[in-house]
Order: sequence, then C-alpha cells, then structure tokens
Amino acid sequence: MIRYLLFRVVQITGLLMILPLVVAFIYKEYFCAEVFGIIIAACLIIGFAGGYKKPKNQAIYAREGFVVTALTWITISLIGALPFQLTGVTKSYVDALFETISGLTTTGSTILSDVEMYYSVQFWRCFTHWIGGMGVLVFILAIMPMAGGYSMHIMRAESPGPSVGKFVPKVRETAKILYSIYFGITILQTVCLLFTGLNAYEALTATFATVGTGGFGINNAGIGGFGYASQVVITVFMIICGINFSVYYYLITKRPKEAFNNDEVKLYLALMFGSATLIAFMIYKQGATATPLESFHHSLFTVASVMTTTGFATLDFNTWPQLARTLLACLMLTGACAGSTGGGFKLSRFLILIRAMKNELTYIVHPKSVKKVYMDGNPVDQSVVKSVSAYLSMYVVIFILSTLLISIDEFDYETNFTAVAATLNNIGPGLSMVGPTGNFGAYSDLSKFVLMFDMLAGRLELLPMLILFSPKNWTKR
Amino acid sequence: MIRYLLFRVVQITGLLMILPLVVAFIYKEYFCAEVFGIIIAACLIIGFAGGYKKPKNQAIYAREGFVVTALTWITISLIGALPFQLTGVTKSYVDALFETISGLTTTGSTILSDVEMYYSVQFWRCFTHWIGGMGVLVFILAIMPMAGGYSMHIMRAESPGPSVGKFVPKVRETAKILYSIYFGITILQTVCLLFTGLNAYEALTATFATVGTGGFGINNAGIGGFGYASQVVITVFMIICGINFSVYYYLITKRPKEAFNNDEVKLYLALMFGSATLIAFMIYKQGATATPLESFHHSLFTVASVMTTTGFATLDFNTWPQLARTLLACLMLTGACAGSTGGGFKLSRFLILIRAMKNELTYIVHPKSVKKVYMDGNPVDQSVVKSVSAYLSMYVVIFILSTLLISIDEFDYETNFTAVAATLNNIGPGLSMVGPTGNFGAYSDLSKFVLMFDMLAGRLELLPMLILFSPKNWTKR
Repeated sequence: MIRYLLFRVVQITGLLMILPLVVAFIYKEYFCAEVFGIIIAACLIIGFAGGYKKPKNQAIYAREGFVVTALTWITISLIGALPFQLTGVTKSYVDALFETISGLTTTGSTILSDVEMYYSVQFWRCFTHWIGGMGVLVFILAIMPMAGGYSMHIMRAESPGPSVGKFVPKVRETAKILYSIYFGITILQTVCLLFTGLNAYEALTATFATVGTGGFGINNAGIGGFGYASQVVITVFMIICGINFSVYYYLITKRPKEAFNNDEVKLYLALMFGSATLIAFMIYKQGATATPLESFHHSLFTVASVMTTTGFATLDFNTWPQLARTLLACLMLTGACAGSTGGGFKLSRFLILIRAMKNELTYIVHPKSVKKVYMDGNPVDQSVVKSVSAYLSMYVVIFILSTLLISIDEFDYETNFTAVAATLNNIGPGLSMVGPTGNFGAYSDLSKFVLMFDMLAGRLELLPMLILFSPKNWTKR
Repeated sequence: MIRYLLFRVVQITGLLMILPLVVAFIYKEYFCAEVFGIIIAACLIIGFAGGYKKPKNQAIYAREGFVVTALTWITISLIGALPFQLTGVTKSYVDALFETISGLTTTGSTILSDVEMYYSVQFWRCFTHWIGGMGVLVFILAIMPMAGGYSMHIMRAESPGPSVGKFVPKVRETAKILYSIYFGITILQTVCLLFTGLNAYEALTATFATVGTGGFGINNAGIGGFGYASQVVITVFMIICGINFSVYYYLITKRPKEAFNNDEVKLYLALMFGSATLIAFMIYKQGATATPLESFHHSLFTVASVMTTTGFATLDFNTWPQLARTLLACLMLTGACAGSTGGGFKLSRFLILIRAMKNELTYIVHPKSVKKVYMDGNPVDQSVVKSVSAYLSMYVVIFILSTLLISIDEFDYETNFTAVAATLNNIGPGLSMVGPTGNFGAYSDLSKFVLMFDMLAGRLELLPMLILFSPKNWTKR
C-alpha cells in the first residue's frame, strides 16, 4: 500500500510540473521546457507503471500513515529538485534539494544569493510553496477514493496542529473542502493583486508564496519592490492564511457561532494587532518611517510575515529597536494557528501548555482541586495535553541536536541558533549570516542535510520524521 | 507562622555574619567590623523581639510552604546586601542586592568589574554561596523542632529536583543528614586545598564557591591564578557536589546497591567524561594547550564547572571551536543532578521528559501499549511526569518574558539571551557583554530586578516565586 501511494505521488508530481512547462512555453524558455518535459514524461511513465494496480490490502495504520507521509515528502522533494539542478540554477544536487524542501515545507530559506533566474524555474520554486502549503497527501485524499477509515491516519500525520478537526465524517470530503477553501483564497488574492497593478506572473507567484506562507520572492528586492497597495493585499492574505481553515468552513456553512468561538484565533488576532501597534509606536519614535500610518503599515506587514512564518520583508528589521526585534523573535517561535498553512510551534499548543501550567500551579497550592484544561469552552482530553507536552520535549531535543551538529561548521552562535529556529519553524530567514540579506549557501552539506531534516520535521510536526528515523519502530512489527 | 519563621531567618542571618566579622578582625579591617557588628546587632534584636514567642498554630500547608520559602530568600538577600552597600563596594543598593542574590542562589553573576576588595566583605560574598548551596530553610529545619509533618512542605519548596527523597521518616533528621554531608565535603575540600599550597583564606573562600557551585572568585584572574594541583582538587569537588546527595547518604549507611542504582548519576558521569574527552580532543587539535593531558585537565575543569553551573574558568573558552562551545552551552542548560547544590534544569527532569517522549512515540505507533516512565527501575508516578512537563512550560515562559523585558536595554541578542540563561540556570557568566570577562553592571535597574527574579526562580525551581507573585493564589483563601 505504501508502495502504491508513492507511485501515485510520483505521478502527481509529474502532473504538477505541467504548470511550469506552460510558463516555459509562454516565456519561450525552450531549454527549460525540455527539462520539465523530460521529468514529466519520466514521472508519468514510472507512476503509471508502478501504480497501475491497486493493492488488495488497503489498510493504513497509524505507523504506516506517518511513514507514508514522511516518504511522500522526501520523494516529491527528490523529484522537485531536478529542475533546479538540470537548468544549472544550483551548483549541486544537495543545494537543489535544500531549495526544494525549503519551498515545499513553506520555509523560504534559500541557498541562492541571486533569485532572478529562468521564469519557469522561478515559477516552479514559488509553486512548491503552494503545493506544500496544504499538503500533498491531503490532495491525494481529495481525489482518490480509499476504503475504510484508514485515510484518517494519513490526514492526522500531515495536518498541522495538536488535534485534527474533521468537519464531516468522511475524510475525503474534509480534504475536498480544505482544498476548495485553499483554491478560493488563492484566486481571490491573485485577482486582488492584479488590481493593484502587478502583472499575471508577479501576482501568481506572490500569491503562491503568501497563501503557502512560504516567502520565496521573484526578485532580489523582495516585496519591498512592490507598491503599497500590493503590500497591503499581501498583509491581509498573510493574516487570513495564518487562521485555522475550520473558521472559514464554519463561515461558509453559516455557523458563525462555531467560527468565532475559537480561543486560538482570538489569541492570534490579539497578539497580531497588539504587537503591530507596539512595534509601530517604537519604530515611529525611532524615526524609521515618516508617518505613524506608514509605521503601522510596515509593522503590521512584518508581524504578519513573522507570525505566519512567511518570511517576507519590506524593511530590514535588524535596524529596529531591540525590544521590537526580540518581540518578533518570540512571535516566530509561537507561530500561527493550527490547521492553517503557517508553521511554528502553533498557538493552540502554546495555549494548552499555558493552561496546563496554570492548572499545575493551582494543583500544587490546592491539591484537592483537579481541573481540566479547557479550549473553546470544551475540556481537552488528558492525552492531548500529554502529547503536546511530549511535542515540546521533542522540539527542544531536535533543536539542541541540530544546533550541535551544524556548529561543526564553526559559524557563530547567532547564525547557528537562528538557522535552526528558522528552518524548524519554517520561517525562512534567520539572523546574522542567514539573515534577510544573507543565505544558507555557506553551510556544509552535512549541515544542509540537518537543516533539511529540520524543515521537514517542522512542516510535518516532528512525528513522521521521528518515526521514520527511529529504528525501534521498524523492528517491532 | 510565616511571620515567626521570618523573624527566625533574620536572627540566623545575623548569626551567620559573625564569621565575616571574625575575618574583619583578623585582617584588621575595623571599618568593616563596625559595619558587620551593627548589622548583626540589629538582626539579633529584631529577630529575638519578633520571634520570642512560638505561635500556637504551627500548620504550614503547601502554599504557605512555598510562600515562606520565597519570602525567606528575599529577606536574607535584603539583609545580606547591606555589607556591600555600607562598605561602599557597590554603587547602589540595587547592585548590592544583585550581588547578594547572585551569591545566595549560587549563580555567580557579578556587577563588579573589580572583585578585589575588603577581605571580610569578600569572605561574606563567597560565604553566601555556601549558605545558599544547601538552603536556608533546610538549616532551620535541621535545628528547629517543628510539630507534625508540616516541615515537609518547606523541604519540598526549597529542595532542587522533581521529587523529594526522604532518607528517614522525619524531615528534621533528613535535614540534619544533608547538612552533615555538606559540612563533611566542605571540610574535606578545605583540607585538600590547604595541602596544595593555598592559604587558609584562599582555601576557605574557594571551597565555599565550589561546594555551593557558585563561582565567585577572590581575585580578578579567577581560578586560573591557582596552581594545577588546586585546580584538580576543585574539579573533583565540583563533580562531587553536582551529584545527588542521597548517593552519599546511601554510601555512608553502607547501601551501595541503592547508591549506584541511580540513572541520573550514571547519565551525569557519562555526559561529564564523554563531553570532556570530546572537547579535550578538539582543543588539543586546535593547539590551545601543549599536551593532551593538559587539554583534558582544562576540558574536564570547564565541563565540570559548566555542568554543575559553578561558573569557574581556567581558560577563556570563547576561543574554543564552535562545536565545543555549543556543547558547553547545552550542558549549561541540562545542569547537574537533582538533590545536589548545582542549578540548571536538572538531569532527572531531562531524563523523565526524554522517556515520556519515547513512550509517547511508541503510543502513537502502537496505541494499545500504554507504558509507564521508569527511573532507577521504578515506575514514575504520572503526576510527576505531568509536573515536570509543566515545569518545562514555566521555564520557557519565564525565559521568554525575561528576555523581552531586558531587551528594553537595547543590548544585542547574544548578551540578553545568555544573561537570562546564565541567571535562570544559576550559572554565572553568559556570553558577549556578560561573558567571563564582562559583567552585568551595564544593565538598567529594571533589568537587574528581572535577572534577580530569574536567579531566585532558578534556585527555588520556579514554583515558590511564581506562587508568591501570582495574585490568584492570594485571593483564593
């Protein structure tokens, strides 16, 4: 069954590359068209050859769900890296792989110092954000009928957040609804950006990078090169994509009470606008911008970009006051809402931990009062609290080990620390050598592999990668 | 009852200051003798006046236990700061308070650029490490008979580690045993240091700083100014003081099986010698030292100093390879064993979290296998795992909030981040501006108060300080 699903993934990767192929023809990049054409042909042949027969045993259990998710992402990354390498955009296949994984995991870290390249390859680069934003397997679930309730295990492995909300009993329907919302937002933003004066190519690539909360840009100047109106549109859509998609589902199905009764979204918006106002005040006082409105514009753009882990920048915030910078660093770590396309630790986990912590404090003082953790007015199951706590431990352990491994390269603490933070949270740029004006190209191949692991682990929320790489789970059948 | 205990604390602080008074007379520092004399007199009068009558209701519950612990440490710090300020060693009372809290919490961070001062004041400075190492209330418990099992709540609030091991049913006996071991180690190290050629004053102050795992030195050159033999003695005693004191109790009472069946101590020693060997290899390769043995000497000294959060230095490890420096930074965070005088997160907590994390991974893959977390071969109660998880959350929250608050001072990330890490873990020096060659003097008073809170929170393991400062626990009677 795992084999069958992987061949389907190869096939779908091939199909997805038809879009950049079209772009190559439009911009008359025949060399690139040839590269994309060959990869597509190979993918389709391999995919059909290997996946022509459905296996009889369609059972997917918890472990297989995690393993297939991890392998899918690795497969699509290996194929997706080919265009970068074959067109000569990257120097080595490791670099190409780093760039692709960074794209698919919506991280937006780059090893390129110059991002102005072939239109079609650049289109593919931004398109990977869009593919990775909602997830590859959710897409497969949406189009492929699967027997039994097994698909739930895959859904659980790929979706971000401490618990998976099923809107409707059937997983396939849920996946379809998610992808419809995703499509809707994408089209809406593209149209809005077209109105602000961008051309179709610019609008589409910027949209991919925004709704996937990725952060790859098509020119070296980044979003700062666009006009104010476009920046406002991007700000609004970044904020929209950082919200749990279930809110939109409830709004569409006219259940506003369920949509607005969401503690995580409330905290998200409060943090977003609270921090933006505070930072706007600070940078206006510092004299970084001319008017208070302009300060708020840049401040909100940056806060939205950081909280949703998109990684766009209009101003170099390294020159802002230290309090503003530290606040931004904290917002990077907490991240966006569960069930959104944003990365990071996720606010709902944060909320659960804070509430569990409060309960623990009360418990120590009043040992007889045993309270439950509440979210959105409902008690949270003790096993969820336990798994969120374990998640924090895993996060800390992966963070420490990664920092240790990449420190072999002899770069400074700030570079290493923020490189791991930026990749594990799928943010994109870090600070110092890997800051908004630098890139990850200087790292050794070993460090690049560590950071690739971190990006995948961050996007897939640690478990699939940990289960794939823990030998104990392979031997115990 | 809280009031009564606090008056006793004032009284005991006065009695403890008799030692520096004696030193002042020996070195003929009559001005200092006068200062200490006045403080001692005031403490004794106030202490006797307020604490002459034992209250009838001796009940101390969980909350009162935490509150009295927090208040005791604050009281003794307020009094202990007076000698620094009145002899003119520090510029302001805030600085004096910072220095005293740093001493009592065995942190060893300093705001002084020149530590060569009056002998008696310096003696008091190092003596605070020794007082804080084992805890003030444990001392009171050892000498004061208390009714009922109430003293357990105080013991629990002041002792480091996730769970308190009672050697004998009576808390008072346990406290006495702990202090006897502490005294024994102190005398042993002083004698050893005398044999290596230090004079009595040097031996005694170095011993206080070592067994309390504090790190204040008596000369600006630090431990590097001592001979090799003295350094070896200090290394050995640092390692000894980072081990859970229960091991020594079991050894004294001839129960070697219980002494050596300790997962935490095994991990502690393995990490200690493993890291030291690795770092010795790296610095020898780098050419920092002449012979392999010398490399190992400095490496083991530094690893022991860092893991036990003492904070001594023989070489400036900022020039070592980045991998070695990152490894040291990680060891700072994990810290020493629970039940020792060392600070940090404590290895046993780390072990419990790692094992809980492994269980969670297994649980996800095999949902039917519910396993318990084991330590030393015994299952750990689920409530302990829960409270350790909550501890990690609290630790992260305090870390983030402190970093945010002190970033108002506009220092760089590395300085702020390591300043919080060094104080919250009771290590002492951080990196960059607060590195081994710098000090904390440049911070504003607000930041100093934040860091003082962190030092106390770190030493008392978060809970007492959080409960003291959470208004909710005051109103709900």
